[in-house]
Amino acid sequence: MKIAAFEHAGEYQVGLVSQDGSHVRPFMLSSDKRPVGLLCLIAWLESGGELPAVGDALPLAQVGLLAPFRSFRRNLWCVGRNYRAHAKELAGSVFQKEQEDGWPMVFTKVPEAVVGPHAEVRLPTEVSEQIDYEAELAVVIGRGGCNIARADAMKHVFGYTIVNDVTARDVQMRHGQWDLGKNLDGFCPMGPWVVTADEMDGCNTRVRCWVNGELRQDGHTADMIFDIPALIETMSRGITLYPGDVIATGTPAGVGMGMQPPRWLRTGDVVRVEVDGIGAIENRFI
Amino acid sequence: MKIAAFEHAGEYQVGLVSQDGSHVRPFMLSSDKRPVGLLCLIAWLESGGELPAVGDALPLAQVGLLAPFRSFRRNLWCVGRNYRAHAKELAGSVFQKEQEDGWPMVFTKVPEAVVGPHAEVRLPTEVSEQIDYEAELAVVIGRGGCNIARADAMKHVFGYTIVNDVTARDVQMRHGQWDLGKNLDGFCPMGPWVVTADEMDGCNTRVRCWVNGELRQDGHTADMIFDIPALIETMSRGITLYPGDVIATGTPAGVGMGMQPPRWLRTGDVVRVEVDGIGAIENRFI
Repeated sequence: MKIAAFEHAGEYQVGLVSQDGSHVRPFMLSSDKRPVGLLCLIAWLESGGELPAVGDALPLAQVGLLAPFRSFRRNLWCVGRNYRAHAKELAGSVFQKEQEDGWPMVFTKVPEAVVGPHAEVRLPTEVSEQIDYEAELAVVIGRGGCNIARADAMKHVFGYTIVNDVTARDVQMRHGQWDLGKNLDGFCPMGPWVVTADEMDGCNTRVRCWVNGELRQDGHTADMIFDIPALIETMSRGITLYPGDVIATGTPAGVGMGMQPPRWLRTGDVVRVEVDGIGAIENRFI
Repeated sequence: MKIAAFEHAGEYQVGLVSQDGSHVRPFMLSSDKRPVGLLCLIAWLESGGELPAVGDALPLAQVGLLAPFRSFRRNLWCVGRNYRAHAKELAGSVFQKEQEDGWPMVFTKVPEAVVGPHAEVRLPTEVSEQIDYEAELAVVIGRGGCNIARADAMKHVFGYTIVNDVTARDVQMRHGQWDLGKNLDGFCPMGPWVVTADEMDGCNTRVRCWVNGELRQDGHTADMIFDIPALIETMSRGITLYPGDVIATGTPAGVGMGMQPPRWLRTGDVVRVEVDGIGAIENRFI
């Protein structure tokens, strides 16, 4: 399934996208569940609930696609330094010391930073002069759990979506810990929908990013330092994961900061992030 | 005002604690607001709503005090390395490089780590052998805002509470970024209530911590490297703060890791954190 959130006739809806991506059929959710959206639907399905009935198909072109989640129970989990070529391109700047390969670097993004797959993102130039993109596959947790073994990890994946882990590099670096530099308003474009785990192999897909049509990142999730089972195993060590948790899995090489000289995002830039098996998000920075 | 959350007769309640701390009077909240608790009440008050009426006084000894918040809109913000003596005691271990004094180190704690002021906390010995306490004053944001100037910052403070920023030092260090080591289940004892900003001066109060009756930390918020106005100014640079956001302001010297040899928490240890003007929380580690 592809599950999208959208607005139609003034109502917030979550619906099932047709296989060809041309239409969406809204789930018939009760009035208490509908505003919460996908977070509520995942919890419902994971507790054994049946997939709700759907209404009439609407042409996707006639609805406004939103980020697949509107409500989150907490910040999104994010992984840094998860592709070797990217670790190398930022060695000595963002990655100041030799981080052991044995343990992933994990930080978070606030729910309020999340914007839709085609939303405009304001460049907060009063705060940062070094705003950068990071194309990422994000894992959506279905069944929760604590101390999840690697062998069981994939059973906890509900599906996948795309995030652009937008980063203010100057803010990220000067604070030592990354949470502030990752969390400026609008810094988490997400979408265009969630693809359920039965429809794609998140461990083996391609992640690309274009800026104004120029290919900048072209990675493959099979090249992750910590693959998805390793991330789930490590991040659930003593920490209970919940249905609807999102884990952004890190970005491949090719970020603006890694270039000589660095190429920061500027007003008018359009960043497209595509993940094979999901689709693409495309955001203009203003 | 002192505002506490508690359970009484099987119902979750938020109420007003009497000045002498002996009684609490539940706010008469509507059925949609009551389960959300203090988060909802703060939003209501900040939007100009009047303080709800209160019901009959209940002896505090007869209700089960809970963490003042049950619902959060996102992770709690936390500040590391905010007292010079603490910066010194962990220099070369947690604080690996000379962090510029100019910018605070900010990470987060998940809402699900929050437990009550007298809750037992399980030591996740299967994950960490180096579990440590951190006594902290926490600021509760009232009025939201972005790019808040230092001069206006205190107008955004709703009140104060206490947190013990429990930390798995081995996990904190090996991941480089701190979010995992700070977020094990139960690692955020909080309470005993929120004291509103008109009743105390958070910029000038004493923070102490005892382990099994032995005084370990004895700091003063006037000695913060980044005072509360500086924290609010810095953390709202490009990031909108919301009513009910919690900012744990960092811990003074005297953590277990700073001792020679380090003294980690063990089964049966009782950690008491007291902040003058608020009260105390006391948690047994099991």
